[in-house]
Amino acid sequence: MRIGVLGAGQLGRMLALAGYPLGVHCVFLDRNSDAPTAGLGRLMVGGFDQPERLAELAGEVEVLTFDVENVPAAALRAAGVEPLCRPGLLALETAQDRLAEKRCFESLEIEVAPYRTVDSAADLQAALKTVGYPAVLKTRRLGYDGRGQRFIHHPEQAAAALRELGGIDLILEGFVPFEREVSLLGVRSPRGAMAFYPLSENHHAQGILRLSRSPAPNSALAETAREKVERLLVHFDYAGVLAVEFFESEGRLIANEMAPRVHNSGHWSIEGAVTSQFENHIRAILDLPLGRTDALGSSAMVNLIGEIPALGDLLAIPGLHLHTYDKAARERRKLGHATLVAPDDQSLEIPLKQLLRLTAGQR
Amino acid sequence: MRIGVLGAGQLGRMLALAGYPLGVHCVFLDRNSDAPTAGLGRLMVGGFDQPERLAELAGEVEVLTFDVENVPAAALRAAGVEPLCRPGLLALETAQDRLAEKRCFESLEIEVAPYRTVDSAADLQAALKTVGYPAVLKTRRLGYDGRGQRFIHHPEQAAAALRELGGIDLILEGFVPFEREVSLLGVRSPRGAMAFYPLSENHHAQGILRLSRSPAPNSALAETAREKVERLLVHFDYAGVLAVEFFESEGRLIANEMAPRVHNSGHWSIEGAVTSQFENHIRAILDLPLGRTDALGSSAMVNLIGEIPALGDLLAIPGLHLHTYDKAARERRKLGHATLVAPDDQSLEIPLKQLLRLTAGQR
Repeated sequence: MRIGVLGAGQLGRMLALAGYPLGVHCVFLDRNSDAPTAGLGRLMVGGFDQPERLAELAGEVEVLTFDVENVPAAALRAAGVEPLCRPGLLALETAQDRLAEKRCFESLEIEVAPYRTVDSAADLQAALKTVGYPAVLKTRRLGYDGRGQRFIHHPEQAAAALRELGGIDLILEGFVPFEREVSLLGVRSPRGAMAFYPLSENHHAQGILRLSRSPAPNSALAETAREKVERLLVHFDYAGVLAVEFFESEGRLIANEMAPRVHNSGHWSIEGAVTSQFENHIRAILDLPLGRTDALGSSAMVNLIGEIPALGDLLAIPGLHLHTYDKAARERRKLGHATLVAPDDQSLEIPLKQLLRLTAGQR
Repeated sequence: MRIGVLGAGQLGRMLALAGYPLGVHCVFLDRNSDAPTAGLGRLMVGGFDQPERLAELAGEVEVLTFDVENVPAAALRAAGVEPLCRPGLLALETAQDRLAEKRCFESLEIEVAPYRTVDSAADLQAALKTVGYPAVLKTRRLGYDGRGQRFIHHPEQAAAALRELGGIDLILEGFVPFEREVSLLGVRSPRGAMAFYPLSENHHAQGILRLSRSPAPNSALAETAREKVERLLVHFDYAGVLAVEFFESEGRLIANEMAPRVHNSGHWSIEGAVTSQFENHIRAILDLPLGRTDALGSSAMVNLIGEIPALGDLLAIPGLHLHTYDKAARERRKLGHATLVAPDDQSLEIPLKQLLRLTAGQR
């Protein structure tokens, strides 16, 4: 069986690696001919906006799925490949636009932070009055890893933030004074089977995920999160893995954003869960039975950003699982991750400290 | 980093899959251009007896290792690549010849079944007198999966067995009335670090491994097996994974044979141990720190032979991990394997019964 993957980054790489044992092979479409998936399935070089390339890819595979969510839905429709897309285009388009996403969350009674759309300086002034300080001005589209965001703590920061983000198609969000950030991944197959991973606790630095712990210590809200993700899966008649990020604030979960694909905060599942998010995404989009999602213990996943420490140092940490992405080193770039799995949170402490020491100062 | 692999079968395939996350890439040499490793690293098409191909491969990689053990050591020496071989050629040559292997075991005080070399009908008559009935006549070289073996229960079976196996370069082994077959895998790096997997209990049918349970239930002899494998690792100044098969008989372990490579009875370690045999083989031959070898629970590995059941049926078994090898179906051919991991032997029973039912009648 063959699946087409739009984008050939590290998520595509790990999908391909999960596919081989199932006899499932990936064909990738990406502009970058030197992608992290190199050697792991045929790579078609081209843009997502080229209907002829999309149609060519679709002709070779049984379903199409996504390594990135910023794929133009119009091009997919023009190429006539919409019926092959898993997840479907409604989920994709909703996740691409912060406004559509928030409205979708609200329609499903999933709480979000207060927000206002901003398309001018006047809009921003009005929005700041409603939302209050501090607030975060964000582009509606194409933001990732903290890009396309500006904090506004004082009125005098407003004009610069507006200018830097382009002045239009923005959204102002009230800052939620959260205790922590968490995420939950659900997976659904076309026949309606669903499974949910444990809640993950996520720590970011400079907008990039650094550390994720799963199951999140003290995850009293896991069931609440699970219900919210389930509502989204059903709403979209979803196929594949869906990740939803939340702020945890005074016993409540406030949805931040969703990703209609496998997610960085689920990388721990390769070793830490019975079935990895990558294998379950493949099972789901091919409508095969889903695999069990229970955790095998306590996991910690640390991203390797900007550089990968010496292999000998990393692998000397007992029980460490390394995942490099074969990407050229560059500041703020995710080059790999490392996962530790232990029977409980306490036995995770020593190796996790070693790993955090080894990766301290990464940027 | 790049490693050269002689042979591109399922073991090479799983080595390649374990290499990617470490940033280690395989280059394969095999006569078969449609090998199970296809798409998982460059495949050089050629024979192991072609020194120029071996030298070409060696020029591209840091070390050479083996998917199969029947590689002619003379060709490796002629190509000048012996220093790159991990494990080294002494281990390889010893494992290729049942006589050399038995003598090596004996020199290290590792008990073997009684045996006599046989190069003629007269030899066989004399050997049968010493060894007794039943006995097994085997070719000294190139036997695998039960091939190159004939049972002799009665004197009148001797002549046919001798003729069928070629009459020369044979060995007659006394049949050990064993309670079960077990195996133990050790791994050693050039710097001398060693680690050992738990004992596995192996069930064969028609000479082919069908089911392997790890850790073997009631593995009172695990420590004894570990010591024997350690003696071999040190003797050969070994690098990589070494598998040794034993008969368990009245509280004793009688060495049957060894394989100087990753081994079918270690496939469970992909999900059932902290570090898989494939990753540890790579770590070892590159002299990186070895990974932990402890079991995560009770594992059962079932080979898929001759045909692979429907994917939907296999994946519906809770917690099942499937590994296909992308090989064309053929009788008596290993096409894949499936692994179950449970907290204990008892919780393994129900899914294992389902899996055995699904694969019953395979040949």
